[in-house]
Parts: sequence; C-alpha cells; structure tokens
Amino acid sequence: MINVLIDTLGGDKSPSVNVEGAVRAVNEIPDLRIVLVGRKQDNEKLLENLSYDKERVELIDAPDEISCNDKPTDAIRFKKDSSLYKCFDLLKNDENAHALVSTGSTGAIVAGATLKLGRLRGIKRPALCPVLPTMNGSLVGVCDSGANVDCDAEYLHQFALMGSLLMQKAYGVESPKIALLNVGVEEEKGDMLRKEVYGILKEEKQINFVGNMESRDLLSGKYDLVVCDGFSGNVLLKSTEGACLEMLKMLKKVLTKGLKNKLGAALLKKDIYELKDYMDYNNYSGAVMLGSKKVIVKSHGSSRASAVYMSVKQAYTLVKNDLIGAISKAVSAEEE
Amino acid sequence: MINVLIDTLGGDKSPSVNVEGAVRAVNEIPDLRIVLVGRKQDNEKLLENLSYDKERVELIDAPDEISCNDKPTDAIRFKKDSSLYKCFDLLKNDENAHALVSTGSTGAIVAGATLKLGRLRGIKRPALCPVLPTMNGSLVGVCDSGANVDCDAEYLHQFALMGSLLMQKAYGVESPKIALLNVGVEEEKGDMLRKEVYGILKEEKQINFVGNMESRDLLSGKYDLVVCDGFSGNVLLKSTEGACLEMLKMLKKVLTKGLKNKLGAALLKKDIYELKDYMDYNNYSGAVMLGSKKVIVKSHGSSRASAVYMSVKQAYTLVKNDLIGAISKAVSAEEE
Repeated sequence: MINVLIDTLGGDKSPSVNVEGAVRAVNEIPDLRIVLVGRKQDNEKLLENLSYDKERVELIDAPDEISCNDKPTDAIRFKKDSSLYKCFDLLKNDENAHALVSTGSTGAIVAGATLKLGRLRGIKRPALCPVLPTMNGSLVGVCDSGANVDCDAEYLHQFALMGSLLMQKAYGVESPKIALLNVGVEEEKGDMLRKEVYGILKEEKQINFVGNMESRDLLSGKYDLVVCDGFSGNVLLKSTEGACLEMLKMLKKVLTKGLKNKLGAALLKKDIYELKDYMDYNNYSGAVMLGSKKVIVKSHGSSRASAVYMSVKQAYTLVKNDLIGAISKAVSAEEE
Repeated sequence: MINVLIDTLGGDKSPSVNVEGAVRAVNEIPDLRIVLVGRKQDNEKLLENLSYDKERVELIDAPDEISCNDKPTDAIRFKKDSSLYKCFDLLKNDENAHALVSTGSTGAIVAGATLKLGRLRGIKRPALCPVLPTMNGSLVGVCDSGANVDCDAEYLHQFALMGSLLMQKAYGVESPKIALLNVGVEEEKGDMLRKEVYGILKEEKQINFVGNMESRDLLSGKYDLVVCDGFSGNVLLKSTEGACLEMLKMLKKVLTKGLKNKLGAALLKKDIYELKDYMDYNNYSGAVMLGSKKVIVKSHGSSRASAVYMSVKQAYTLVKNDLIGAISKAVSAEEE
C-alpha cells in the first residue's frame, strides 16, 4: 500500500478540491491510501457526499493554515497545528508516510522540505520541477523553477541529474533530452555560470545532455528537461504563462467583437476550447520537489479537483517507481 | 540636417529592405539625410526604382559583410571592408554621422559600440533596449535584453537611468514607470543581485521606480520599462516571443481544420490578422543600444522595409531629442 498525505488547506479552493481530487485517485488506484490532513470536521462533511473505500482514507485534524502571508521558515517551525507542519512531521517520523501533495504556500513547502524533512544525502539544494505540455504533445520539465534564486554550477548539475530521473520515473521517457537554458545554442554562449555548467553536463555520463536551449524553444517539444537557476527558471515559466494568457485574452476579445465574429466563434467553439484546455494547468500534475527525502508534489494554489487528482497520481507513481532511491543512487555515483 | 548611417548588409532580406525602408523615412522627414553603407552598385540599382531627394541620400561602398558566423570582436577589428566596420569608423571620426541603423549581427554591433565607438563617460556597460507593444496599447522597454549576461548592481542602476530616458525621448512618456524584473513583487524577493538593485533604485531620484515586476506582467501595460540583467532579459523576451508564436501556430491549426472551422475563420479573418499584426516586430522600431557615444538602432535580422523605416525614424527622433546628451547628464549627476 502506498500512503500519500494530502494537505487539505492552503489552496484557493481548499479543502473541497483537495478532498475530491484525492478521493478520485483512491477510487482509481487499488493500492493507494490517502491521509487527509486539515480541518477534520470540514473534511468529514465533504467525504459524506463521496463514495470510496473507507479503509483507504484516513483523517488527521490540523485546524491551522499556513498562508502566503506567513513567513515560510517561521510558519513551518512554529505553526504546530497547521496542516503543513503536521504533514512534514509525519513525513519525517513515520516511515509509512510516503509522499505529500499540497496546494499550499510554495515557500512553506520548500522550507518544510529543507528544514524539517531534510535533503537526501549528497544533495546540495532541493529544486522544484514543474512539467509543461509542449506543442507536439510531449512534456517538458523545468528544473529549478524558483526554489533556488542564487545557484552555483554544482546545484545545476544536480538539477539535471534529478530532473532526468523525474522524466524517466514519472513519464517513462527513456533517455530524457536535457538542455541548459541559455541565451544562444552555441557552446560558448552565456554568462560565467552557464559556461561552467555546460562543461560539467557535457561530461556527465548519467544524462543525455543535448546542449543549450533558447527560451523561445521551451514549448517546441525538442527537449524533455530544461536545466536553469531558479531565477531564470521563474522568469521563463511566468513569461511563457503570461504571454499565453495574454494571447487568449486578445483572442477572446476578437471572438466576442460584433455579430460576425460571434458567428465565426460559434463555429470554432469546440476547437478553441481545446486550445484553452491545453493551457489549463488543471489538466496536469503539479511541480515535484526534487532532492527531498520523500516525494513532494506542489499543486497550483488555484487548483481544481482535477489538478489535485493528477498530482496525487503523480505522487503515487513516483513512490511506486522509487524516484527517491534513484536520485540517491545517482548522487552517490557522483561522489565515488 | 540629421545624418543617419544605414548598414545595408547583414539582414536576411538585405540590402533591399534597408534601402527601401530608409528611403521611405527620407521621403517623410525633411531634415533627415541617409548614408547607405554597403555594396554601392547593388544599392544604386535599388535606388533606381525609387523616387527621393537625391541631395539627402549618399552612398558609401563597403563590399564585405559581417555575418553571424564571424566572431564579433574579430570581425569589427579586422573586416575593414565590411559595412559595419565602415559605419563605426564614420560614427567615431565624423561628427556629422549622428546615428546608425543596422539589421546586422547583434554581437558585432555591441562589439563595435564598445570597442570602436566607445561608451559615454561614466557608463559601465552599454545595454540593448528593445521596446514591445503591451496589451493595452502602450509600449514597454526591456533593458538589458542581452548585451551583458554577467551584471552587477551598478550596471542595472545605469540601465534604469538610460532606459527611462529612452522612453521619454523616443515616446514622450513623461515619467516612465520603471520596474525591476524579479521572481515576486515584494521588496524582499529575489537573488542577491536583485536585493541590492532594489535598494539602489528605491533611492534613485532621477527615475520613477515602482518596484518589482513578475515576468508574466511584461505585456500588461502596467510598466514602461523593465530593468534586468542581459541573461534574464533575453530569457524574458524570447520566451514571451516563443509562447506568442506557438499560440499563433496552434490557432492557425484550429482555423484551418475542417470546413466548419474554415468558415468560422473566414468570418474572423480581419480581426485575426490584426492579432497577428500586433505580434509582428515589423511594425515596430528595433532595439536601441544605450550608453554609446552615438545613437544606434539594431533592427531585427529578418526585418522587412517597414521595420527599417520605423528604426530610421526612431534614430532620427533620438538624435533630434538629444538622448545622448540626456544620458550624459544623468550619469554625471550620479557622480557628483
């Protein structure tokens, strides 16, 4: 049985989406057990309307919530009745607590993973790796997407190792194509950090390094994982997201402008919705925190139940496929 | 009379677009004079088909071309018969050569500006500042967009001063709203560089600093200029561009899929084209090189004549409004 903790507080639509999404996963996966950590009464009420195997759903009461206004490091240390505090307590002390899915504060999750649960032996910094859909239907991971804004070359080296394993273990990509985010594709491009990292990745036998990637190619489908420092990873992700959303807004304006356009829009409706769906993170799993001692999936703060469901499945798969063991092994291979 | 040098080599559609675009500007602006620097015979031939005031168009022969395959610093030093070499020679030695517009290699232009023409007194690093259209119709500059991949806080401070003046002198924005590209809007966000720069910009009286900007807000219209290091500026621009283009591609697929969609597309045609036009850099001026001793505008390598025309007008306006003098003054004010 694989046990996944579900933090049911902290998201915009918590706890209902967390409970619903997690129960959907339980109903689909026979050897999954979920532990709902949050306001017990609220969660019990939500469960009343759902059908599921009662043996595989546990409730733990945690009345307090860590919000985005809390200072992450303080909250994870001192808010003892909060759902995230209790989750990290369980992850640390209970060997049967295999994974965590949360829609809560990214800062608090990073702080919990670092300060409470702790890093895997040999890991310099844990990294956050979301995965995006590309234009040819494949997926691309971005590691690190913002957990570490100040990075050195060894961090990025480890991001590449961990991200490569994630794409294998989560999506069965056999030899993930790893690229380094840079200002040009040529080997000599970039700042001092990129030049140093390029040299390291080129020699790294454990990954399939294919060279530099310009940010405009993120969604091209040519790469399975992009390695970057958390600052530029954050810029990359948010500008891609921002531009797509602005384009959709402009498109919406066009489609609702005047009778003729509305008529045209009616004819295109189904396929335009597909375009919108493609963009919707609710159809994808959350970001995986790599380098922690257990599997942690951070789902978007405004997740709907479908996003939580995808994230719980992701967490289950990563435990099943022993991502943590694989990362440990890869890192110790470097030390030898 | 304002004299603008036109490098007629180095672009994908050179020299025809360079000659046509520049002549269009000459025909519109009575006190503009252009100097076409490139293969004289080719340019003469192109001019035969155009009508213009012959007094205000000069030709200089430069048969050689600096391509993207040349090492910029070497090319700008040793390719003496190249158009860019001759342009920088004129900028340096002829006080009547007021400005340069080129569709050539960005690297060579940056090298020429730095090594041959030289920086303005007090300027640490010249920066490249392209300007993008926002979703509410205003424009936003990005400084630096890639001329300097390794930056310190003082560079970014100067990028803010220069970019602010550009938005004033080029577009008449009275008190440009300057933002710092960062991973969050709160003051304490970011890496060590951003924290230091925030402190400097907050105290800078010469600009209207409005705080941090997340990359998803680039096109929102809330800011007139974004300050960043060249590495993340490059990531910001190329991922925004990339995402917009990928969205357009997906939209095109939708619009041409099946009869019903094609019918819908026909009804929407005009407005969809406007959407595409909005995205087309050919409707905007090129990037301005800030901190050099003269005005330099770098137009996109695949510019059409309209882009060259916009860039020549931009160069003219910036000479007319004495951008260089304003930057000198702002920088010396800092030194006092």
